[in-house]
Amino acid sequence: MMGKVYLVGAGPGDPELLTVKAVRILRSADVVLHDALVAESILAMVRPHAQLVDVGKRAGEKRMTQDAINQLLVEFSGCAETVVRLKGGDPLIFGRAAEEMAALRKAGVEFEIVPGITAAVAASAQARIPLTDRESSPAVVFLTAQQAIGKGPTEIKRFASADTTLAIYMPNGRYGEIGRQLIAAGLSPQTPCVVVSSAFRVEQEMAWTDLAGLRLVSPPESPALLIVGAVARCREEIPAAPSSLLGVFKIGLEATRR
Amino acid sequence: MMGKVYLVGAGPGDPELLTVKAVRILRSADVVLHDALVAESILAMVRPHAQLVDVGKRAGEKRMTQDAINQLLVEFSGCAETVVRLKGGDPLIFGRAAEEMAALRKAGVEFEIVPGITAAVAASAQARIPLTDRESSPAVVFLTAQQAIGKGPTEIKRFASADTTLAIYMPNGRYGEIGRQLIAAGLSPQTPCVVVSSAFRVEQEMAWTDLAGLRLVSPPESPALLIVGAVARCREEIPAAPSSLLGVFKIGLEATRR
Repeated sequence: MMGKVYLVGAGPGDPELLTVKAVRILRSADVVLHDALVAESILAMVRPHAQLVDVGKRAGEKRMTQDAINQLLVEFSGCAETVVRLKGGDPLIFGRAAEEMAALRKAGVEFEIVPGITAAVAASAQARIPLTDRESSPAVVFLTAQQAIGKGPTEIKRFASADTTLAIYMPNGRYGEIGRQLIAAGLSPQTPCVVVSSAFRVEQEMAWTDLAGLRLVSPPESPALLIVGAVARCREEIPAAPSSLLGVFKIGLEATRR
Repeated sequence: MMGKVYLVGAGPGDPELLTVKAVRILRSADVVLHDALVAESILAMVRPHAQLVDVGKRAGEKRMTQDAINQLLVEFSGCAETVVRLKGGDPLIFGRAAEEMAALRKAGVEFEIVPGITAAVAASAQARIPLTDRESSPAVVFLTAQQAIGKGPTEIKRFASADTTLAIYMPNGRYGEIGRQLIAAGLSPQTPCVVVSSAFRVEQEMAWTDLAGLRLVSPPESPALLIVGAVARCREEIPAAPSSLLGVFKIGLEATRR
């Protein structure tokens, strides 16, 4: 027996933000290998007898390696009809799908991608700001904090421009460093920023500030996304424009449902 | 009576790639203002008595202006409970949602964003290539062909880098120009490219080539997306590696469903 593997995007965490196709595939799955971040309410969709494998779980002290995950996908495809690899957001954006697809191709396993709502798209929807704007920001760059900080201002400089939106994944609390690096790369300290954590989940929080104010953002516990650029300028429903020193405003999920 | 406006992403066109939430909202809509590109099978989801307004349709010789669309959204919210503005892809990426949100805010109309699968995400899923890759492409830029061509090689140079994926929206058949401009900006003529048109629709086509070969791509009739970068290197299931002169391979929807 040779099963098929589906690399499925689970979106930001709200079960309603799965695609219809993702729900259908998930409901027909025999095995689901999922990240630690995938919400319980999404995992609850699988059939009672389906096998759930948390490949993001730390077993003892160490997390399952990517190689081990690749191997599991290939092995399960030999004994199950429908194998789902469920990833937060979209599988093809910061999802290490390249490695999984290479392993599946090498083993001759049939596979398909079911796209999902990636974190930047979810965050901008909840912040109600566009990622691109005809006037102010005709392009958007998706990158990781590691990239924004690690390569130094010379490297990040090519992305850091007044007319480009930056969607920074996995800021991991390094807001002050990111702000400093982007200012060093030539962006104005007053460039608007918003940090959206746990978009579309009950624990959702937003912090509106600017690059100079980023250092005052207290890192949320949960996964977050940082949007930098003119598009993130403070909306009129927020009490006052942020100043560099005091400009962190937090807005929870309820406020975005008005 | 004061209704609520939902800016809803319709995704790439396959009704199964709407989010569960988008389907729910669409099914409860009283009025749906939609783009010309939204598939019939998606519009078929609305209730029989709901009003459908094609705001992408050319009335006589001219298309409805953005101002007129903004005004319609505000007016309908005064006489209908649930007003949907349905856009292809995601509303906040190249969707002119900024202007609609500004009009709704100004008029004090309640609104909410329902995110969708944007064209770059759909195209990469069907091409089965990642948009980012830990090794080769740690960032992805979403931009339009207008931007890639119009601003000259000096401007596009900051995005054109061997380790960055470019997802170019609305190439509008200007493949040769885009290829020339990106080579002039410093990218290798052998940089892999794939053009995906009508992702997830029956008329889907893909052309795999490289920057030098882009001029040989015959523009598809339908909306397309161009992915440029190491991630787009020819997959092993494609018969041969593309050469600059002969390297355009087309793959239809059926082949991606193997």
